[in-house]
Amino acid sequence: MQDKPQNFPTTQANGSPLKPLTEAILERRATNQFTSEEVPEEYLNAILRFGAQAPSGYNFQPWRFVVVRDEANRKRLQGVAFNQSKVGEAPVVIIAVGMKEEWKRTADEVFREGAARGAGKKENVESAKQGAVGFVSSMDAAMWVNRHTMIALTTMMLVAEAYGFDTAPMEGFDAASVKREFGIPDEGEVVALLAVGRMQPPDKPYTGRLPLGRIAFGERFGEAWKE
Amino acid sequence: MQDKPQNFPTTQANGSPLKPLTEAILERRATNQFTSEEVPEEYLNAILRFGAQAPSGYNFQPWRFVVVRDEANRKRLQGVAFNQSKVGEAPVVIIAVGMKEEWKRTADEVFREGAARGAGKKENVESAKQGAVGFVSSMDAAMWVNRHTMIALTTMMLVAEAYGFDTAPMEGFDAASVKREFGIPDEGEVVALLAVGRMQPPDKPYTGRLPLGRIAFGERFGEAWKE
Repeated sequence: MQDKPQNFPTTQANGSPLKPLTEAILERRATNQFTSEEVPEEYLNAILRFGAQAPSGYNFQPWRFVVVRDEANRKRLQGVAFNQSKVGEAPVVIIAVGMKEEWKRTADEVFREGAARGAGKKENVESAKQGAVGFVSSMDAAMWVNRHTMIALTTMMLVAEAYGFDTAPMEGFDAASVKREFGIPDEGEVVALLAVGRMQPPDKPYTGRLPLGRIAFGERFGEAWKE
Repeated sequence: MQDKPQNFPTTQANGSPLKPLTEAILERRATNQFTSEEVPEEYLNAILRFGAQAPSGYNFQPWRFVVVRDEANRKRLQGVAFNQSKVGEAPVVIIAVGMKEEWKRTADEVFREGAARGAGKKENVESAKQGAVGFVSSMDAAMWVNRHTMIALTTMMLVAEAYGFDTAPMEGFDAASVKREFGIPDEGEVVALLAVGRMQPPDKPYTGRLPLGRIAFGERFGEAWKE
């Protein structure tokens, strides 16, 4: 296992301070056109490392990320993503994959490391692991990895925005073709794509949100939340 | 539709600056024990409002959140969440729900508002809407709402952390019982719970993460990413 990232950029690439999360959320729009400007290596590493810090059930981390930067590969990805031009344009497109089986093979390692780092007692590792594997196995595997992968992907999207980059999360692709083109195993669920780069203006307009009272409820579904 | 939140806390409740996103991510642990200290109303509103700013396919926003604060209701939720004590302890527990059908009924409103705000032409609203509804309907509805709801829930979790609160995302509950107890309609998928409050120390240890080369790949699945 790896420790927390320690060396990561603490400013945007142009030296501006990191955007506060509130600002990153409010300024983020799904970018439709990207310039060809590359995402510097240290920023891309940081985006991936922070995404990898996302929480997961029992720390099973079922997410995997294929980082596509090579132009021919981006065009190939575009071809299996309804030919969306931003896929070929953005300097980086991350294919987010959830693995339905692999976590079972790493469960032992995850639990032993957890105990070594102070989570639970060493003598209980085996029974705790069995309980965890049983519980997670009781859930729909595709659903479970989709939920988890979205935690990590959302984290990456917000970190990229805080670093001043623009992003586009995408759900338009032919999953079977993406798997075939990028060597993704059978057990992998292609969950989403995330393009990262610099926007080619104009930015998308903000199209509003449903009033909070229609999506948030107090105590019981249907009881409109009052701000 | 509502505009972006404009009045929201710009510091933590104790006056400290908002945590940078990088720090919020690194400090976040799933909290196991909460104190009874309440989450001030203005912070809870901000957490919900920022969560509601999450992106969704065509801005359909299929997420709904039941905010449970009443003690008897929290105990009732605990009872259908494998009796996890943190559910009863935390001052706020948010039930995140994905709605599989409701977005179809609001699609017209969403597209008209989008066009009014500059996204697309008014004369194309009807055909664009029909295309969008057709595309989203082609995906597995439960999967689709699970993915989306996790974007908003992850956003809330990170905003709460940036404001200095502690959180616990949870997947251990009996969905049918949660739906029955909190009046959630048939079409609702209970996606996750999120407890928000203040940690009762000690915090959970950090249990490490899989090395980046095992979860991130360059260009093709299986080709370890090199930092």
